[in-house]
Amino acid sequence: MPKNSSLPRIAVDAMGGDFGPGVIIKGAVEAAQTKKVSLLLVGREEELRKELAKYKVDHLPIEIVNATQVVEMVDKPSEILRKKKDASIHVACRLVKEGKADGVVSAGNSGATLACGMFVLGRIKGVERPALATILPTEGNPVVFLDVGGNVDCKPFHLVQFGLMAEVLAKDLLCVPNPKIGLLSIGEEEGKGNAQAKEAYKLFKLSSMNFMGNAEGRDVFAGKFDVIVCDGFVGNAVLKVSEGVGKAISNILKAEIKKSFLFKLGCLLALPAFKRLARRLDYAEYGGAHLLGLNGIAIVCHGASNSRAIRIAVEKAGAFVTSKANEHLVEGLKANKELALFTKRALPEGRQ
Amino acid sequence: MPKNSSLPRIAVDAMGGDFGPGVIIKGAVEAAQTKKVSLLLVGREEELRKELAKYKVDHLPIEIVNATQVVEMVDKPSEILRKKKDASIHVACRLVKEGKADGVVSAGNSGATLACGMFVLGRIKGVERPALATILPTEGNPVVFLDVGGNVDCKPFHLVQFGLMAEVLAKDLLCVPNPKIGLLSIGEEEGKGNAQAKEAYKLFKLSSMNFMGNAEGRDVFAGKFDVIVCDGFVGNAVLKVSEGVGKAISNILKAEIKKSFLFKLGCLLALPAFKRLARRLDYAEYGGAHLLGLNGIAIVCHGASNSRAIRIAVEKAGAFVTSKANEHLVEGLKANKELALFTKRALPEGRQ
Repeated sequence: MPKNSSLPRIAVDAMGGDFGPGVIIKGAVEAAQTKKVSLLLVGREEELRKELAKYKVDHLPIEIVNATQVVEMVDKPSEILRKKKDASIHVACRLVKEGKADGVVSAGNSGATLACGMFVLGRIKGVERPALATILPTEGNPVVFLDVGGNVDCKPFHLVQFGLMAEVLAKDLLCVPNPKIGLLSIGEEEGKGNAQAKEAYKLFKLSSMNFMGNAEGRDVFAGKFDVIVCDGFVGNAVLKVSEGVGKAISNILKAEIKKSFLFKLGCLLALPAFKRLARRLDYAEYGGAHLLGLNGIAIVCHGASNSRAIRIAVEKAGAFVTSKANEHLVEGLKANKELALFTKRALPEGRQ
Repeated sequence: MPKNSSLPRIAVDAMGGDFGPGVIIKGAVEAAQTKKVSLLLVGREEELRKELAKYKVDHLPIEIVNATQVVEMVDKPSEILRKKKDASIHVACRLVKEGKADGVVSAGNSGATLACGMFVLGRIKGVERPALATILPTEGNPVVFLDVGGNVDCKPFHLVQFGLMAEVLAKDLLCVPNPKIGLLSIGEEEGKGNAQAKEAYKLFKLSSMNFMGNAEGRDVFAGKFDVIVCDGFVGNAVLKVSEGVGKAISNILKAEIKKSFLFKLGCLLALPAFKRLARRLDYAEYGGAHLLGLNGIAIVCHGASNSRAIRIAVEKAGAFVTSKANEHLVEGLKANKELALFTKRALPEGRQ
């Protein structure tokens, strides 16, 4: 156990991520140095011990928990559950389930995190599918955007349930009293979209949410909504494309600037403005995606997370524990009682 | 008829678009001034005549074709076909069908253009659904990206047909001898994605195309593929989000720059670099989306097109006529004979 047990105890999947344990441990250690979290680093003990030896951590509440198996990107979630019970993400979730940790952070295979989260921690009562929610920067206030890859092939009622969960999160984290909820579709008018979106639109209208109708792709970063809901396939594509656009713009601009000394000088003068822009758009700042709807706190980081992204995610997980974000979610969902209305069982056939 | 009939004759839906006939006619007239196209402006004659009177056009091959009805954004395609036979887009497509025009350009309701295109012009033999293809700028070479909103709820074999059409377009327009084809999904590995993408992956592997596997959202603007295929719901969301990101970045940067005189000065020095970036990323430059798979040339422009975007789209339609792009598409599809393999009838149940 971490030595200082009054701090939030975060189990970190040290084997997850594209760059191996080194990056994860660096970020996690930096989070621990803030003295706001204690750590359980989960993974192959020897490897982790070697990485950890690079830092002065004797005084920090950090413990290593051995997990012999590693999840690969090609592993299917069902196989991980059956055959990789000693995988780092599996062990990390068990630590939360057993009350030895308060939350888990992973930059590994997000399907594996979802599967282990669902089967080890279990779902909040009434939630049919947990959803991966991210908080995105916009021109205005941030927006809770979900699902970003937790669930593909959603039923319309799943989207409504995602909305109900995100509504609580937006009230709690973004301090918006009556969040404006949008449904991602391809046209503002009711009746625009695919079969899933059209039926979800009708269900959203039946709900108690402050449903503002369809949000178009161009609204995501415009700050017009507090919550935007979509299927995980679409959400993941949208999220990754928006990262890609940012990167392409930056690369093209850099190439253009190199073409003249005056351009270089100009950009040097305006550098602080660029830096603030980059910071505002940096996903790392927002600390990964929250796996909403589990009995426990789970944060999923980008596979390509650097140590800074990991540090922020671990700190955020700690802040979630302290602020009782998940308890509020449970209470909020209990209070509105609507989850039960938007399930396969409750809805007549053809409205699911 | 336009006076100079040796030029490509482009029927322009002058009533389509968010900003009314004024913008459309300005753009179309500018295209006619290049002396590379002749125009048939389709819409309410009186309104168009008034707009056209603003320009010196006596010497230009421009004709007005009266169409009394106007398509609204809320109109359903089926209703437009039945009840709005004298709508501008309907009349414009008929002009092509009747051999009085060589191509059509519209910035109106894209569902209406697709419906009129399909039912008036008809599909190329073997094509199950026409697709809306756009050419996007990337860090490297441009990419043919489709479907961007023509078809939602696609079957996996539709995606393969889109790929076959885009392959011909990439060879013809982008001059890539063996285009690299990607399938938009949420993970690089086979087996990642929703049910549609997973099955489409298997079908793509069976095809003769140079299929490179799944493309992730971040690959769209990276220039790794010559063609990226997806469902129209996803493609439209992705396209509009990428526009939104660009706009948000530009707005945030402008706000940051205003904060200091030095920043302003710096940006002034680097202005040509910014301008070149903006030009490279401007969708208008790419002249709307090509409705692939019809017996005729149809270009769909953004509803919010400015006159420059319309001008470029009309010029592009003219260039398509001159280069015989559609004839090449018909020949290309005939030559590879694969369209017939990827249809509902040809595929066993469960592989559609």
